[in-house]
Amino acid sequence: MMDVITSKDNSKVKYLASLHDARTARREGVVFVEGVRSCEDALGCGVVPTVVVADEAHADWAKKISEETGCDALLLNDVCFKKISQTVHPQGVALVAKRPEMSGEITLRGDNKDIFMCLEDIQDPGNLGTMIRTADAFGLTAVIISPTTCDPYNDKVIRATMGSVWHIPIVRKTMDECFEYFTKTGTETLAMHLKGNELNVNELSLPCAYFIGNEGDGLTDETTAKCSKFVKIPMKGQAESLNAAVAASVIGYELSKLI
Amino acid sequence: MMDVITSKDNSKVKYLASLHDARTARREGVVFVEGVRSCEDALGCGVVPTVVVADEAHADWAKKISEETGCDALLLNDVCFKKISQTVHPQGVALVAKRPEMSGEITLRGDNKDIFMCLEDIQDPGNLGTMIRTADAFGLTAVIISPTTCDPYNDKVIRATMGSVWHIPIVRKTMDECFEYFTKTGTETLAMHLKGNELNVNELSLPCAYFIGNEGDGLTDETTAKCSKFVKIPMKGQAESLNAAVAASVIGYELSKLI
Repeated sequence: MMDVITSKDNSKVKYLASLHDARTARREGVVFVEGVRSCEDALGCGVVPTVVVADEAHADWAKKISEETGCDALLLNDVCFKKISQTVHPQGVALVAKRPEMSGEITLRGDNKDIFMCLEDIQDPGNLGTMIRTADAFGLTAVIISPTTCDPYNDKVIRATMGSVWHIPIVRKTMDECFEYFTKTGTETLAMHLKGNELNVNELSLPCAYFIGNEGDGLTDETTAKCSKFVKIPMKGQAESLNAAVAASVIGYELSKLI
Repeated sequence: MMDVITSKDNSKVKYLASLHDARTARREGVVFVEGVRSCEDALGCGVVPTVVVADEAHADWAKKISEETGCDALLLNDVCFKKISQTVHPQGVALVAKRPEMSGEITLRGDNKDIFMCLEDIQDPGNLGTMIRTADAFGLTAVIISPTTCDPYNDKVIRATMGSVWHIPIVRKTMDECFEYFTKTGTETLAMHLKGNELNVNELSLPCAYFIGNEGDGLTDETTAKCSKFVKIPMKGQAESLNAAVAASVIGYELSKLI
Protein backbone atom coordinates (compact mmCIF):
# COMPACT_ATOMS: atom_id res chain seq x y z
CA MET A 1 0.00 0.00 0.00
CA MET A 2 1.46 3.32 -1.08
CA ASP A 3 1.30 6.44 1.03
CA VAL A 4 -0.92 9.21 -0.26
CA ILE A 5 0.67 12.64 -0.44
CA THR A 6 -1.71 15.20 1.02
CA SER A 7 0.43 18.32 1.31
CA LYS A 8 0.73 20.77 -1.55
CA ASP A 9 4.08 21.77 -0.02
CA ASN A 10 5.51 18.29 -0.48
CA SER A 11 8.73 18.61 -2.50
CA LYS A 12 7.63 16.04 -5.10
CA VAL A 13 4.34 17.86 -5.65
CA LYS A 14 6.23 21.12 -6.00
CA TYR A 15 8.61 19.54 -8.52
CA LEU A 16 5.76 18.11 -10.62
CA ALA A 17 3.91 21.43 -10.53
CA SER A 18 7.08 23.23 -11.65
CA LEU A 19 6.95 21.22 -14.90
CA HIS A 20 3.95 23.34 -15.99
CA ASP A 21 6.62 25.75 -17.10
CA ALA A 22 7.89 24.50 -20.47
CA ARG A 23 11.38 25.87 -19.87
CA THR A 24 11.66 24.06 -16.54
CA ALA A 25 10.59 20.78 -18.16
CA ARG A 26 13.17 21.28 -20.92
CA ARG A 27 15.91 22.19 -18.43
CA GLU A 28 15.07 19.11 -16.36
CA GLY A 29 15.19 17.02 -19.55
CA VAL A 30 11.75 15.52 -18.94
CA VAL A 31 8.31 15.29 -20.51
CA PHE A 32 5.13 15.51 -18.46
CA VAL A 33 2.33 13.39 -19.95
CA GLU A 34 -1.19 13.60 -18.57
CA GLY A 35 -4.52 11.87 -19.08
CA VAL A 36 -5.55 8.26 -19.64
CA ARG A 37 -5.27 8.25 -23.41
CA SER A 38 -1.95 10.12 -23.61
CA CYS A 39 -0.35 7.97 -20.89
CA GLU A 40 -1.56 4.75 -22.52
CA ASP A 41 -0.26 5.93 -25.91
CA ALA A 42 3.17 6.65 -24.43
CA LEU A 43 3.36 3.37 -22.52
CA GLY A 44 2.10 1.45 -25.57
CA CYS A 45 4.95 2.96 -27.59
CA GLY A 46 7.53 1.73 -25.09
CA VAL A 47 8.08 4.98 -23.22
CA VAL A 48 9.61 4.11 -19.83
CA PRO A 49 8.42 6.58 -17.18
CA THR A 50 10.71 7.77 -14.44
CA VAL A 51 7.61 8.17 -12.30
CA VAL A 52 3.87 7.59 -12.63
CA VAL A 53 1.48 9.83 -10.73
CA ALA A 54 -2.12 9.05 -9.86
CA ASP A 55 -4.94 10.24 -7.68
CA GLU A 56 -6.40 7.80 -5.16
CA ALA A 57 -9.01 6.53 -7.63
CA HIS A 58 -6.20 5.40 -9.96
CA ALA A 59 -3.93 3.79 -7.38
CA ASP A 60 -4.21 0.38 -9.06
CA TRP A 61 -3.16 1.82 -12.40
CA ALA A 62 -0.08 3.43 -10.85
CA LYS A 63 0.83 0.21 -9.04
CA LYS A 64 0.48 -1.85 -12.22
CA ILE A 65 2.63 0.49 -14.33
CA SER A 66 5.19 0.75 -11.56
CA GLU A 67 5.47 -3.04 -11.35
CA GLU A 68 5.63 -3.47 -15.12
CA THR A 69 8.24 -0.80 -15.78
CA GLY A 70 10.10 -0.60 -12.49
CA CYS A 71 9.41 3.13 -12.18
CA ASP A 72 8.46 4.99 -9.02
CA ALA A 73 4.80 5.63 -8.32
CA LEU A 74 3.30 8.59 -6.49
CA LEU A 75 -0.22 8.77 -5.11
CA LEU A 76 -1.68 12.22 -4.55
CA ASN A 77 -4.95 13.31 -3.02
CA ASP A 78 -7.28 15.34 -5.26
CA VAL A 79 -6.00 18.71 -4.10
CA CYS A 80 -2.39 17.78 -4.83
CA PHE A 81 -3.25 16.15 -8.15
CA LYS A 82 -5.06 19.31 -9.20
CA LYS A 83 -1.94 21.29 -8.35
CA ILE A 84 0.32 19.18 -10.59
CA SER A 85 -2.25 18.86 -13.39
CA GLN A 86 -1.92 20.98 -16.52
CA THR A 87 -5.54 20.49 -17.59
CA VAL A 88 -8.85 22.00 -16.53
CA HIS A 89 -10.43 18.60 -15.86
CA PRO A 90 -7.67 16.31 -14.50
CA GLN A 91 -8.21 12.62 -15.21
CA GLY A 92 -6.09 11.53 -12.27
CA VAL A 93 -3.20 9.92 -14.15
CA ALA A 94 0.10 11.35 -15.35
CA LEU A 95 3.66 10.27 -15.94
CA VAL A 96 7.07 11.83 -16.28
CA ALA A 97 9.57 10.43 -18.77
CA LYS A 98 12.96 11.35 -20.13
CA ARG A 99 12.63 13.91 -22.93
CA PRO A 100 13.49 12.37 -26.30
CA GLU A 101 16.66 13.65 -27.94
CA MET A 102 15.90 16.14 -30.73
CA SER A 103 19.40 16.74 -32.02
CA GLY A 104 20.21 13.29 -33.29
CA GLU A 105 21.03 12.09 -36.78
CA ILE A 106 18.09 11.23 -39.04
CA THR A 107 17.87 7.57 -40.02
CA LEU A 108 16.97 7.39 -43.69
CA ARG A 109 14.70 4.73 -45.19
CA GLY A 110 17.45 3.36 -47.42
CA ASP A 111 15.37 3.34 -50.61
CA ASN A 112 15.74 7.05 -51.37
CA LYS A 113 12.02 7.62 -50.83
CA ASP A 114 12.33 9.84 -47.82
CA ILE A 115 9.83 12.64 -47.20
CA PHE A 116 10.52 15.33 -44.61
CA MET A 117 7.95 17.72 -43.17
CA CYS A 118 9.83 20.90 -42.24
CA LEU A 119 8.03 23.35 -39.99
CA GLU A 120 9.16 26.94 -39.63
CA ASP A 121 7.81 28.78 -36.60
CA ILE A 122 4.58 26.83 -36.03
CA GLN A 123 3.02 28.31 -32.89
CA ASP A 124 -0.22 26.45 -32.22
CA PRO A 125 0.24 23.24 -30.19
CA GLY A 126 -2.89 21.69 -31.74
CA ASN A 127 -1.60 22.36 -35.24
CA LEU A 128 1.85 20.97 -34.43
CA GLY A 129 0.33 17.84 -32.87
CA THR A 130 -1.94 17.28 -35.86
CA MET A 131 1.01 17.67 -38.23
CA ILE A 132 3.09 15.12 -36.31
CA ARG A 133 0.15 12.69 -36.36
CA THR A 134 -0.26 13.20 -40.12
CA ALA A 135 3.46 12.75 -40.81
CA ASP A 136 3.36 9.47 -38.88
CA ALA A 137 0.19 8.30 -40.67
CA PHE A 138 1.58 8.93 -44.14
CA GLY A 139 4.91 7.26 -43.42
CA LEU A 140 7.13 10.34 -43.58
CA THR A 141 10.75 9.90 -42.46
CA ALA A 142 10.89 12.74 -39.94
CA VAL A 143 9.39 16.02 -38.83
CA ILE A 144 11.96 18.80 -38.68
CA ILE A 145 11.10 21.84 -36.61
CA SER A 146 12.74 25.25 -36.54
CA PRO A 147 14.13 26.66 -33.28
CA THR A 148 11.08 28.93 -32.88
CA THR A 149 8.47 26.21 -33.44
CA CYS A 150 6.63 25.37 -30.23
CA ASP A 151 7.82 22.53 -28.01
CA PRO A 152 6.61 19.16 -29.38
CA TYR A 153 6.77 17.67 -25.88
CA ASN A 154 4.24 20.10 -24.47
CA ASP A 155 1.17 18.32 -23.11
CA LYS A 156 -1.25 19.81 -25.68
CA VAL A 157 0.93 18.75 -28.58
CA ILE A 158 1.34 15.25 -27.15
CA ARG A 159 -2.43 14.91 -26.82
CA ALA A 160 -3.08 16.06 -30.40
CA THR A 161 -0.54 13.57 -31.81
CA MET A 162 -2.54 10.62 -30.39
CA GLY A 163 0.72 8.75 -29.73
CA SER A 164 2.53 9.68 -32.95
CA VAL A 165 4.95 11.88 -31.03
CA TRP A 166 6.52 8.61 -29.84
CA HIS A 167 6.62 6.98 -33.30
CA ILE A 168 8.17 9.44 -35.72
CA PRO A 169 11.56 11.15 -35.29
CA ILE A 170 11.25 14.84 -34.45
CA VAL A 171 14.41 16.83 -35.01
CA ARG A 172 15.06 20.47 -34.20
CA LYS A 173 17.30 22.20 -36.76
CA THR A 174 17.85 25.71 -38.02
CA MET A 175 16.58 26.25 -41.55
CA ASP A 176 20.23 26.67 -42.65
CA GLU A 177 21.11 23.27 -41.22
CA CYS A 178 18.11 21.82 -43.07
CA PHE A 179 19.18 23.14 -46.46
CA GLU A 180 22.77 22.02 -45.88
CA TYR A 181 21.51 18.52 -45.06
CA PHE A 182 19.11 18.39 -48.02
CA THR A 183 21.75 19.63 -50.46
CA LYS A 184 24.15 16.96 -49.20
CA THR A 185 21.53 14.22 -49.54
CA GLY A 186 20.16 15.35 -52.92
CA THR A 187 16.72 16.02 -51.45
CA GLU A 188 14.32 18.23 -53.40
CA THR A 189 13.06 21.20 -51.35
CA LEU A 190 9.48 22.43 -51.79
CA ALA A 191 8.19 25.71 -50.43
CA MET A 192 4.45 25.71 -49.79
CA HIS A 193 3.66 29.17 -51.03
CA LEU A 194 0.52 30.82 -52.36
CA LYS A 195 2.57 32.15 -55.31
CA GLY A 196 3.82 28.70 -56.29
CA ASN A 197 2.70 26.42 -59.13
CA GLU A 198 -0.31 24.22 -58.50
CA LEU A 199 0.63 21.01 -56.77
CA ASN A 200 0.93 18.13 -59.23
CA VAL A 201 2.45 15.00 -57.77
CA ASN A 202 3.61 13.85 -61.22
CA GLU A 203 6.04 16.76 -61.31
CA LEU A 204 7.59 15.88 -57.96
CA SER A 205 10.10 13.25 -56.96
CA LEU A 206 11.55 11.73 -53.81
CA PRO A 207 13.50 12.25 -51.66
CA CYS A 208 11.68 15.47 -50.90
CA ALA A 209 11.42 17.95 -48.05
CA TYR A 210 8.50 20.36 -47.88
CA PHE A 211 8.41 23.53 -45.85
CA ILE A 212 5.36 24.93 -44.06
CA GLY A 213 5.49 28.32 -42.38
CA ASN A 214 3.94 30.12 -39.47
CA GLU A 215 0.13 30.08 -39.19
CA GLY A 216 -0.30 33.81 -39.74
CA ASP A 217 2.72 34.80 -41.80
CA GLY A 218 3.60 31.71 -43.84
CA LEU A 219 7.21 30.92 -44.70
CA THR A 220 9.86 33.61 -44.29
CA ASP A 221 11.25 35.06 -47.52
CA GLU A 222 14.68 33.63 -46.63
CA THR A 223 13.40 30.07 -46.41
CA THR A 224 11.19 30.42 -49.49
CA ALA A 225 14.12 31.72 -51.55
CA LYS A 226 16.28 28.73 -50.63
CA CYS A 227 13.76 26.11 -51.83
CA SER A 228 14.17 24.56 -55.27
CA LYS A 229 10.43 24.54 -56.07
CA PHE A 230 7.38 26.55 -55.02
CA VAL A 231 4.02 24.83 -54.97
CA LYS A 232 0.55 25.74 -53.83
CA ILE A 233 -2.47 23.59 -53.19
CA PRO A 234 -5.15 24.20 -55.86
CA MET A 235 -8.15 25.93 -54.27
CA LYS A 236 -11.28 26.33 -56.34
CA GLY A 237 -13.29 28.14 -53.69
CA GLN A 238 -13.19 31.46 -51.90
CA ALA A 239 -10.93 31.00 -48.86
CA GLU A 240 -7.50 32.47 -49.53
CA SER A 241 -5.53 29.91 -47.62
CA LEU A 242 -5.73 26.67 -45.70
CA ASN A 243 -5.03 25.93 -42.06
CA ALA A 244 -1.28 25.15 -41.78
CA ALA A 245 -1.92 21.58 -40.57
CA VAL A 246 -4.34 20.98 -43.44
CA ALA A 247 -1.80 22.27 -45.98
CA ALA A 248 0.91 20.07 -44.44
CA SER A 249 -1.45 17.09 -44.62
CA VAL A 250 -2.56 17.52 -48.23
CA ILE A 251 1.00 17.77 -49.54
CA GLY A 252 2.14 14.92 -47.27
CA TYR A 253 -0.69 12.80 -48.63
CA GLU A 254 0.21 13.57 -52.25
CA LEU A 255 3.92 12.89 -51.72
CA SER A 256 3.18 9.63 -49.90
CA LYS A 257 1.72 8.34 -53.20
CA LEU A 258 5.34 8.27 -54.45
CA ILE A 259 6.58 5.96 -51.67
CA MET B 1 -18.68 61.56 -28.65
CA MET B 2 -20.18 58.35 -27.32
CA ASP B 3 -20.75 57.69 -23.64
CA VAL B 4 -18.56 55.03 -22.07
CA ILE B 5 -20.40 52.39 -20.06
CA THR B 6 -18.59 51.86 -16.78
CA SER B 7 -21.02 49.72 -14.79
CA LYS B 8 -20.95 45.94 -15.00
CA ASP B 9 -24.60 46.05 -13.97
CA ASN B 10 -25.60 47.99 -17.07
CA SER B 11 -28.35 46.05 -18.85
CA LYS B 12 -26.51 46.07 -22.19
CA VAL B 13 -23.35 44.72 -20.58
CA LYS B 14 -25.39 42.02 -18.88
CA TYR B 15 -27.06 41.12 -22.17
CA LEU B 16 -23.72 40.84 -24.03
CA ALA B 17 -22.23 38.78 -21.21
CA SER B 18 -25.23 36.44 -21.34
CA LEU B 19 -24.26 35.53 -24.91
CA HIS B 20 -21.31 33.56 -23.50
CA ASP B 21 -23.89 30.85 -23.09
CA ALA B 22 -24.33 29.21 -26.50
CA ARG B 23 -27.97 28.37 -25.84
CA THR B 24 -28.76 31.97 -24.97
CA ALA B 25 -27.09 33.21 -28.16
CA ARG B 26 -29.09 30.66 -30.19
CA ARG B 27 -32.34 31.56 -28.45
CA GLU B 28 -31.68 35.25 -29.07
CA GLY B 29 -30.97 34.43 -32.73
CA VAL B 30 -27.61 36.19 -32.68
CA VAL B 31 -23.91 35.53 -33.19
CA PHE B 32 -21.25 37.13 -30.99
CA VAL B 33 -18.03 37.78 -32.93
CA GLU B 34 -14.92 38.95 -31.13
CA GLY B 35 -11.40 40.09 -32.02
CA VAL B 36 -9.98 42.29 -34.75
CA ARG B 37 -9.48 39.57 -37.34
CA SER B 38 -12.84 37.84 -36.83
CA CYS B 39 -14.76 41.14 -36.88
CA GLU B 40 -12.96 42.31 -40.02
CA ASP B 41 -13.65 38.94 -41.70
CA ALA B 42 -17.34 39.21 -40.90
CA LEU B 43 -17.63 42.84 -42.02
CA GLY B 44 -15.61 42.10 -45.16
CA CYS B 45 -18.12 39.36 -46.02
CA GLY B 46 -21.02 41.76 -45.79
CA VAL B 47 -22.23 40.82 -42.30
CA VAL B 48 -24.33 43.71 -40.97
CA PRO B 49 -23.94 43.98 -37.19
CA THR B 50 -26.84 44.89 -34.97
CA VAL B 51 -24.30 46.43 -32.61
CA VAL B 52 -20.53 46.91 -32.48
CA VAL B 53 -18.80 46.92 -29.12
CA ALA B 54 -15.40 48.41 -28.35
CA ASP B 55 -13.21 49.40 -25.45
CA GLU B 56 -12.09 53.02 -25.20
CA ALA B 57 -8.94 52.37 -27.23
CA HIS B 58 -11.08 51.24 -30.17
CA ALA B 59 -13.69 54.00 -30.06
CA ASP B 60 -12.77 55.20 -33.57
CA TRP B 61 -13.23 51.71 -34.99
CA ALA B 62 -16.70 51.43 -33.44
CA LYS B 63 -17.67 54.88 -34.70
CA LYS B 64 -16.50 54.07 -38.23
CA ILE B 65 -18.36 50.75 -38.43
CA SER B 66 -21.45 52.31 -36.91
CA GLU B 67 -21.43 55.06 -39.53
CA GLU B 68 -20.77 52.66 -42.40
CA THR B 69 -23.42 50.10 -41.49
CA GLY B 70 -25.93 52.16 -39.53
CA CYS B 71 -25.64 49.84 -36.51
CA ASP B 72 -25.54 50.89 -32.88
CA ALA B 73 -22.16 51.27 -31.19
CA LEU B 74 -21.35 50.65 -27.53
CA LEU B 75 -18.22 51.84 -25.76
CA LEU B 76 -17.21 49.97 -22.62
CA ASN B 77 -14.44 50.60 -20.14
CA ASP B 78 -11.88 47.79 -19.72
CA VAL B 79 -13.66 46.15 -16.79
CA CYS B 80 -16.94 45.96 -18.68
CA PHE B 81 -15.30 44.79 -21.90
CA LYS B 82 -13.58 42.03 -19.97
CA LYS B 83 -16.96 40.98 -18.64
CA ILE B 84 -18.51 40.64 -22.10
CA SER B 85 -15.41 39.08 -23.68
CA GLN B 86 -15.29 35.35 -24.31
CA THR B 87 -11.48 35.26 -24.64
CA VAL B 88 -8.60 35.27 -22.18
CA HIS B 89 -6.91 38.25 -23.82
CA PRO B 90 -9.67 40.55 -25.13
CA GLN B 91 -8.67 42.66 -28.12
CA GLY B 92 -11.26 45.33 -27.38
CA VAL B 93 -13.55 44.84 -30.38
CA ALA B 94 -16.63 42.70 -30.86
CA LEU B 95 -19.89 42.69 -32.74
CA VAL B 96 -23.28 41.08 -32.56
CA ALA B 97 -25.06 40.04 -35.74
CA LYS B 98 -28.18 38.13 -36.72
CA ARG B 99 -27.51 34.39 -36.68
CA PRO B 100 -27.50 32.98 -40.23
CA GLU B 101 -30.36 30.63 -41.09
CA MET B 102 -29.25 26.97 -41.02
CA SER B 103 -32.44 25.33 -42.18
CA GLY B 104 -32.67 26.76 -45.68
CA GLU B 105 -32.62 25.03 -49.04
CA ILE B 106 -29.21 24.26 -50.54
CA THR B 107 -28.48 26.13 -53.76
CA LEU B 108 -26.82 23.72 -56.17
CA ARG B 109 -24.05 24.70 -58.60
CA GLY B 110 -26.15 23.84 -61.64
CA ASP B 111 -23.46 21.75 -63.37
CA ASN B 112 -23.97 18.59 -61.30
CA LYS B 113 -20.51 18.92 -59.75
CA ASP B 114 -21.65 19.49 -56.20
CA ILE B 115 -19.60 18.20 -53.28
CA PHE B 116 -21.06 18.12 -49.78
CA MET B 117 -19.07 17.71 -46.57
CA CYS B 118 -21.39 15.99 -44.07
CA LEU B 119 -20.33 16.05 -40.45
CA GLU B 120 -21.81 13.73 -37.86
CA ASP B 121 -21.29 14.71 -34.23
CA ILE B 122 -18.09 16.77 -34.57
CA GLN B 123 -17.34 18.12 -31.09
CA ASP B 124 -14.16 20.17 -31.29
CA PRO B 125 -14.76 23.81 -32.33
CA GLY B 126 -11.25 24.08 -33.81
CA ASN B 127 -11.84 21.00 -35.95
CA LEU B 128 -15.23 22.23 -37.13
CA GLY B 129 -13.80 25.65 -37.99
CA THR B 130 -10.91 24.12 -39.91
CA MET B 131 -13.33 21.89 -41.84
CA ILE B 132 -15.54 24.85 -42.81
CA ARG B 133 -12.42 26.76 -43.95
CA THR B 134 -11.29 23.77 -46.02
CA ALA B 135 -14.74 23.25 -47.59
CA ASP B 136 -14.76 26.91 -48.62
CA ALA B 137 -11.19 26.74 -49.98
CA PHE B 138 -11.87 23.70 -52.14
CA GLY B 139 -15.11 25.09 -53.56
CA LEU B 140 -17.52 22.64 -51.94
CA THR B 141 -21.23 23.41 -52.27
CA ALA B 142 -22.16 23.22 -48.58
CA VAL B 143 -21.23 21.87 -45.17
CA ILE B 144 -24.02 19.81 -43.64
CA ILE B 145 -23.88 19.24 -39.89
CA SER B 146 -25.79 16.77 -37.76
CA PRO B 147 -27.95 17.99 -34.86
CA THR B 148 -25.24 16.96 -32.33
CA THR B 149 -22.35 18.69 -34.11
CA CYS B 150 -21.15 21.73 -32.17
CA ASP B 151 -22.53 25.18 -32.96
CA PRO B 152 -20.76 26.65 -36.03
CA TYR B 153 -21.49 30.17 -34.77
CA ASN B 154 -19.55 29.72 -31.57
CA ASP B 155 -16.69 32.20 -31.29
CA LYS B 156 -13.92 29.55 -31.45
CA VAL B 157 -15.36 28.02 -34.60
CA ILE B 158 -15.75 31.42 -36.23
CA ARG B 159 -12.13 32.25 -35.45
CA ALA B 160 -10.85 28.96 -36.90
CA THR B 161 -12.79 29.46 -40.14
CA MET B 162 -10.89 32.70 -40.89
CA GLY B 163 -14.02 34.17 -42.46
CA SER B 164 -15.20 31.07 -44.33
CA VAL B 165 -18.16 30.69 -41.96
CA TRP B 166 -19.66 33.69 -43.83
CA HIS B 167 -18.87 32.33 -47.33
CA ILE B 168 -20.10 28.77 -47.53
CA PRO B 169 -23.64 27.58 -46.76
CA ILE B 170 -23.84 25.64 -43.48
CA VAL B 171 -26.98 23.57 -43.09
CA ARG B 172 -28.12 21.55 -40.09
CA LYS B 173 -29.92 18.33 -41.04
CA THR B 174 -30.48 14.93 -39.50
CA MET B 175 -28.57 12.16 -41.20
CA ASP B 176 -31.92 10.75 -42.41
CA GLU B 177 -32.77 14.06 -44.05
CA CYS B 178 -29.33 14.00 -45.71
CA PHE B 179 -29.81 10.58 -47.26
CA GLU B 180 -33.29 11.48 -48.42
CA TYR B 181 -31.92 14.59 -50.10
CA PHE B 182 -28.98 12.78 -51.67
CA THR B 183 -31.15 9.95 -52.99
CA LYS B 184 -33.50 12.49 -54.53
CA THR B 185 -30.62 14.40 -56.17
CA GLY B 186 -28.69 11.32 -57.34
CA THR B 187 -25.71 12.21 -55.17
CA GLU B 188 -23.15 9.50 -54.39
CA THR B 189 -22.62 9.02 -50.64
CA LEU B 190 -19.17 8.16 -49.31
CA ALA B 191 -18.48 6.95 -45.78
CA MET B 192 -14.97 7.76 -44.55
CA HIS B 193 -14.23 4.56 -42.75
CA LEU B 194 -11.05 2.71 -41.82
CA LYS B 195 -12.54 -0.48 -43.25
CA GLY B 196 -13.26 1.11 -46.67
CA ASN B 197 -11.37 0.78 -49.95
CA GLU B 198 -8.37 3.01 -50.46
CA LEU B 199 -9.38 6.41 -51.78
CA ASN B 200 -8.88 6.64 -55.55
CA VAL B 201 -10.37 9.72 -57.12
CA ASN B 202 -10.69 7.96 -60.50
CA GLU B 203 -13.30 5.65 -58.99
CA LEU B 204 -15.43 8.51 -57.71
CA SER B 205 -17.85 10.81 -59.44
CA LEU B 206 -19.79 13.98 -58.73
CA PRO B 207 -22.21 14.96 -57.32
CA CYS B 208 -20.87 13.43 -54.13
CA ALA B 209 -21.44 13.76 -50.39
CA TYR B 210 -18.84 12.46 -47.96
CA PHE B 211 -19.47 11.72 -44.31
CA ILE B 212 -17.01 12.31 -41.48
CA GLY B 213 -17.77 11.11 -37.95
CA ASN B 214 -17.02 12.08 -34.39
CA GLU B 215 -13.37 12.66 -33.44
CA GLY B 216 -13.16 9.70 -31.08
CA ASP B 217 -15.76 7.28 -32.37
CA GLY B 218 -15.93 7.90 -36.13
CA LEU B 219 -19.20 7.51 -38.02
CA THR B 220 -22.09 5.68 -36.39
CA ASP B 221 -22.91 2.26 -37.81
CA GLU B 222 -26.30 3.58 -38.94
CA THR B 223 -24.79 6.32 -41.07
CA THR B 224 -22.03 4.10 -42.42
CA ALA B 225 -24.57 1.47 -43.49
CA LYS B 226 -26.59 4.01 -45.46
CA CYS B 227 -23.64 5.19 -47.59
CA SER B 228 -23.19 3.79 -51.08
CA LYS B 229 -19.37 3.56 -50.87
CA PHE B 230 -16.80 3.19 -48.08
CA VAL B 231 -13.38 4.72 -48.56
CA LYS B 232 -10.32 5.20 -46.43
CA ILE B 233 -7.33 7.44 -46.91
CA PRO B 234 -4.22 5.35 -47.68
CA MET B 235 -1.79 5.55 -44.76
CA LYS B 236 1.67 4.07 -45.21
CA GLY B 237 2.90 4.86 -41.73
CA GLN B 238 2.14 3.84 -38.16
CA ALA B 239 -0.67 6.11 -36.93
CA GLU B 240 -4.00 4.30 -37.07
CA SER B 241 -6.10 7.28 -38.02
CA LEU B 242 -6.00 10.91 -39.00
CA ASN B 243 -7.39 13.95 -37.25
CA ALA B 244 -11.01 14.37 -38.41
CA ALA B 245 -10.34 17.78 -40.00
CA VAL B 246 -7.32 16.37 -41.84
CA ALA B 247 -9.37 13.43 -43.16
CA ALA B 248 -12.14 15.81 -44.26
CA SER B 249 -9.54 17.97 -46.01
CA VAL B 250 -7.74 15.20 -47.89
CA ILE B 251 -10.95 13.76 -49.33
CA GLY B 252 -12.30 17.25 -50.08
CA TYR B 253 -9.06 18.03 -51.91
CA GLU B 254 -9.25 14.84 -53.97
CA LEU B 255 -12.91 15.34 -54.88
CA SER B 256 -12.28 18.98 -55.84
CA LYS B 257 -10.06 17.66 -58.66
CA LEU B 258 -13.30 16.49 -60.29
CA ILE B 259 -14.90 19.97 -60.36
